[in-house]
Amino acid sequence: MTINFRSDNETPAAAAIMDALLEANRGPAFAYAEDDWSARLDAAFSELFGCEASVLPLSTGTVANAIALASVTPPWGSTYCHRTAHIFNDECGAPEFFGDGMRLVPVDGDGGKIALGELEASIRAAEGHGIHSYVPTALSLTQSTERGTVYSADEIGALCAFAHDRGMHTHMDGARFANAVASLGCQPRDITAAAGIDMLSFGASKNGCMAAEALVIFNRPQWRETAERLRKRSGHLLSKMRYVSAQLLAYIENDCWLEMAAHANRQAAQFAQAVEAHPTARLENPVEANEVFVRWTPQAFEKLAAKGIEFLTWPGGDDLARFVFGHSTRASETAKLIDVIGGL
Amino acid sequence: MTINFRSDNETPAAAAIMDALLEANRGPAFAYAEDDWSARLDAAFSELFGCEASVLPLSTGTVANAIALASVTPPWGSTYCHRTAHIFNDECGAPEFFGDGMRLVPVDGDGGKIALGELEASIRAAEGHGIHSYVPTALSLTQSTERGTVYSADEIGALCAFAHDRGMHTHMDGARFANAVASLGCQPRDITAAAGIDMLSFGASKNGCMAAEALVIFNRPQWRETAERLRKRSGHLLSKMRYVSAQLLAYIENDCWLEMAAHANRQAAQFAQAVEAHPTARLENPVEANEVFVRWTPQAFEKLAAKGIEFLTWPGGDDLARFVFGHSTRASETAKLIDVIGGL
Amino acid sequence: MTINFRSDNETPAAAAIMDALLEANRGPAFAYAEDDWSARLDAAFSELFGCEASVLPLSTGTVANAIALASVTPPWGSTYCHRTAHIFNDECGAPEFFGDGMRLVPVDGDGGKIALGELEASIRAAEGHGIHSYVPTALSLTQSTERGTVYSADEIGALCAFAHDRGMHTHMDGARFANAVASLGCQPRDITAAAGIDMLSFGASKNGCMAAEALVIFNRPQWRETAERLRKRSGHLLSKMRYVSAQLLAYIENDCWLEMAAHANRQAAQFAQAVEAHPTARLENPVEANEVFVRWTPQAFEKLAAKGIEFLTWPGGDDLARFVFGHSTRASETAKLIDVIGGL
Amino acid sequence: MTINFRSDNETPAAAAIMDALLEANRGPAFAYAEDDWSARLDAAFSELFGCEASVLPLSTGTVANAIALASVTPPWGSTYCHRTAHIFNDECGAPEFFGDGMRLVPVDGDGGKIALGELEASIRAAEGHGIHSYVPTALSLTQSTERGTVYSADEIGALCAFAHDRGMHTHMDGARFANAVASLGCQPRDITAAAGIDMLSFGASKNGCMAAEALVIFNRPQWRETAERLRKRSGHLLSKMRYVSAQLLAYIENDCWLEMAAHANRQAAQFAQAVEAHPTARLENPVEANEVFVRWTPQAFEKLAAKGIEFLTWPGGDDLARFVFGHSTRASETAKLIDVIGGL
Repeated sequence: MTINFRSDNETPAAAAIMDALLEANRGPAFAYAEDDWSARLDAAFSELFGCEASVLPLSTGTVANAIALASVTPPWGSTYCHRTAHIFNDECGAPEFFGDGMRLVPVDGDGGKIALGELEASIRAAEGHGIHSYVPTALSLTQSTERGTVYSADEIGALCAFAHDRGMHTHMDGARFANAVASLGCQPRDITAAAGIDMLSFGASKNGCMAAEALVIFNRPQWRETAERLRKRSGHLLSKMRYVSAQLLAYIENDCWLEMAAHANRQAAQFAQAVEAHPTARLENPVEANEVFVRWTPQAFEKLAAKGIEFLTWPGGDDLARFVFGHSTRASETAKLIDVIGGL
Repeated sequence: MTINFRSDNETPAAAAIMDALLEANRGPAFAYAEDDWSARLDAAFSELFGCEASVLPLSTGTVANAIALASVTPPWGSTYCHRTAHIFNDECGAPEFFGDGMRLVPVDGDGGKIALGELEASIRAAEGHGIHSYVPTALSLTQSTERGTVYSADEIGALCAFAHDRGMHTHMDGARFANAVASLGCQPRDITAAAGIDMLSFGASKNGCMAAEALVIFNRPQWRETAERLRKRSGHLLSKMRYVSAQLLAYIENDCWLEMAAHANRQAAQFAQAVEAHPTARLENPVEANEVFVRWTPQAFEKLAAKGIEFLTWPGGDDLARFVFGHSTRASETAKLIDVIGGL
Repeated sequence: MTINFRSDNETPAAAAIMDALLEANRGPAFAYAEDDWSARLDAAFSELFGCEASVLPLSTGTVANAIALASVTPPWGSTYCHRTAHIFNDECGAPEFFGDGMRLVPVDGDGGKIALGELEASIRAAEGHGIHSYVPTALSLTQSTERGTVYSADEIGALCAFAHDRGMHTHMDGARFANAVASLGCQPRDITAAAGIDMLSFGASKNGCMAAEALVIFNRPQWRETAERLRKRSGHLLSKMRYVSAQLLAYIENDCWLEMAAHANRQAAQFAQAVEAHPTARLENPVEANEVFVRWTPQAFEKLAAKGIEFLTWPGGDDLARFVFGHSTRASETAKLIDVIGGL
Repeated sequence: MTINFRSDNETPAAAAIMDALLEANRGPAFAYAEDDWSARLDAAFSELFGCEASVLPLSTGTVANAIALASVTPPWGSTYCHRTAHIFNDECGAPEFFGDGMRLVPVDGDGGKIALGELEASIRAAEGHGIHSYVPTALSLTQSTERGTVYSADEIGALCAFAHDRGMHTHMDGARFANAVASLGCQPRDITAAAGIDMLSFGASKNGCMAAEALVIFNRPQWRETAERLRKRSGHLLSKMRYVSAQLLAYIENDCWLEMAAHANRQAAQFAQAVEAHPTARLENPVEANEVFVRWTPQAFEKLAAKGIEFLTWPGGDDLARFVFGHSTRASETAKLIDVIGGL
């Protein structure tokens, strides 16, 4: 019997989500997002974020990211993102495809976070080529980051202000947005609309849903039509969209999403504490959400795996591994992991 | 209380499908279609179709169609389809988007079926321009058609043979494939692989699933990689793909899909009989699947609507309407419709 | 020794054009259209057309058409053009490529001209599908047409007014624009800006240039940036653009372009008269520019070819042929053609 | 009176090229590259390179590069090039546009040359993501480089062997190919086909032509059709292609191209010698072709400009400048430059 810390993508859906699906299944409903569930999304998210929000229910984070960027970036525009960003490494060119050959520019920074100085240098280097080069058009931040860290509201505010000053638009890849909000104990708006984020890929699948994400556009209803066209053209306007929207509504109801994320974060924190106390293993980054990156010997990782612990050896070496804690991780599983690691 | 005959896209999911989702939700599973459910698809469909089948689970018919065509058509290739085809009229250019500007060529023919003579003439007209014009590359048939009719195996065979002789590939948009198989009482292979179809968009959402379709490639495993790349790049590789695959497996198990389609077809046939017997309403096309197109006076349709019957007035006029019967249409609802229409 | 009436694309460049090239070759000049010749285009064309004109020098008519349409049409927009249009039949999908999968919709009408009623019907049929279908976005007229006829200013005005009323933009493919102006004896503005044309592909290569066309945007300088980006991205921003611009300036100087076109038109008219007087040959269309379409027996055409007359048998049959007269067609060549045809 | 060392793009065409254009202008010729000049290209270049060569005449280097890469790279493929490459910095995304969202990956290395170790590391980092990331598909080298250096045949051979071992295809951006051949004193084949280059963008515009480049495909005639389709679709199939082909034929006849390049290289070498001998100015890179990069004080550059010397201050600072020597640079101009710099 193994215990899975490989990825929150491998977790099942939460009971509340399954209940919502069953509830949404009681009869006919209008197709193509004209249903009652989908109709409630704008109001529900406007309330959640404390500002005008246009919401497109979607099935994956990849399409949410790609539609967001392609909606505001011409084919000759470039999007700046962290070198570890999912859009840069793990989407096989979805932004480039949706954006008809737009370009992603990787930016450096510690712990998965874009450093403002690096962003400045990178954009400055792109200037002065006139018609011959891409135009910096968008900035995309990942929150929580691909390294399990979390941007503060101030950090986001500074990066967005810099981007807006240059006429760029701002996007947040929030595949693990819930974990960031739970970690910071802030309001969702504090690290999005209020901090200068124009568009959010609101993740839900990793944190308890079956297949539900949302593109949330803040205060710019004029962007909605292009986003809707891209959704349709890419085959993402589900005929029975009610089932995606019902997941999203149940997910944000009664802080359900934040409780699940807080649980996952707590499990990660406990494990992180154990690693910190460990004589040979060490944390690669601060642990601020639900992912823990551990630097250890390949031999130690092998022994750990032999004990039935599943985790992801990070591409590019064999002495770094990722452990992810999800809404469905049981406290007993975390305890067992801590126990096993303590014995190695 | 109204009764819905607007579209099978508006039906709920069948109980067997919901059960399969709950069953698939019992613990962790590998992400991105590496799960056990997805792993069983090739074998299950190979058995169902009696030949080697490569299966990609997908969320919509639009993406299935677009990936199929873009996998075999270069940007300078053209796909021939019926003038009423969904790919031509209702996908907002998804095939053109996935195919980087490929072109769709509409072909005429009665009752939603491509006439071989029209196809010949259309392709002949495209010849002789050399490098300056599109190259005929694919043929796409819709089965059952957008008019509720069904191609016979012989008709499909003749059209596919013609296409193959010209080096073209063949695709079937099977959004209502189950209704066609149930109508013909044939084996699935008889109107696909055995008749010369290379790729099938296997529909399931309209006939009882929540959101599940499949691209099925027959006997050409070499096409799979391109199709997989397009799925990923378009944001259609769900992290929790098990839930799509579980729907598909439950759908084809024990002839579940055919029973649901046969039920819908029977309801349609009963209504069609009533229309035929009606003094003023008349059938627009032969009724061979689950859709019934009725030509009637606008006044009569208004009265029908006033009685709580929901249907779709067909774009382009107000004297033609579509009634669709689904897996969840109750016999009592059909009886009520027949009763109401009889009184007008 | 044969005489060539196959195509004005096969003519050499005029002496005035070659002189301009030699003149432009006297020393260094700024690259990438920053040269003095290119700098004079806007003013020169603004004067020629009597309105504000933004001019992009280009090497082919295909790229002028594609940039024009892609500048104003989103990927989910459709352009309406005549069924015989070059953009529809002879550009291998350039508009679709530049427009990321935009769609062309062919419209019928006699003599190569779009009939207003057909346009209305075609656009009406596209309405009412909402997000699921292409949006009519542009109208493209060919002047003179692919059948050698010429739209009157009133015809153009009516079509453009119809398009503008629906929020569509208007384009003219003027590969043989000079022949139309010369034929009508009007001012260039009468059949463009003043009649409601927003963008013109101003042809020059067929009528005496070596390789020079221009995209002319009327009164909408805000469209220029997108057009320039598309020019660069498609590899059409020549480093030594001065040589294209110098051709264009020489072409329009002192009515040079109109004199060449008028000469070609006159030759065509003389031949047309001979065909009309002929006992068995007949004109397929009115002859209003420099192209003459003749319906005759295949045997007669064979004999004509045997006499050293080169012409184009029209695709789709062997009893229709096109004869094109160019700036370099000598009167003696036309006389010889008339003489030969008279003897058959 | 100023002297221009800004760019070889600003040079006029050589007399031999203008003569060839006049010569090609003597009568009608088949359109769309079906002419006699275009027909001779394959044989002429096959002889020049000592192997089977497929040649597409083109108007710009940008389109030659874009067609080359798009012909062999799927949309999910990536091309590795030097961080200073023209395709990466100066083509506004043409490769991404032609390649439907393919990606360019910049690689480091001194003096504008890709270092093999950097290439290895970069490709290794891209491995192991399966369907989720781009596939390394092509390697593009610039010869001579954007820094005025020249790869040796051995360096090219090693890089190409590495790429071929990984199933990648190889391309050379030869905008200044003539300068490299003249510099090395080798046969053209030594640094192309014989060293493992599959496709060459053969530059001619910078070195004496008006607007003429060629895509040369070595030993792979099966790639030609895709390249031709892309040429047509991008609007680069000139109707009067004879004028491009005539330039190319004259350019390579009797070593004309190598003499012009050798002349430019010699001027650059003389200037480089003067810089080396200068007390405060210094060479940024070895000078191996016709470009000289000089590191100096901003004040010194200002004084130089005030003396009527035109050069390009390099983007990203004000203490680096580029001086380019062309086929039309007069020895007296170089002498004057050397004289002026000596006095500062």
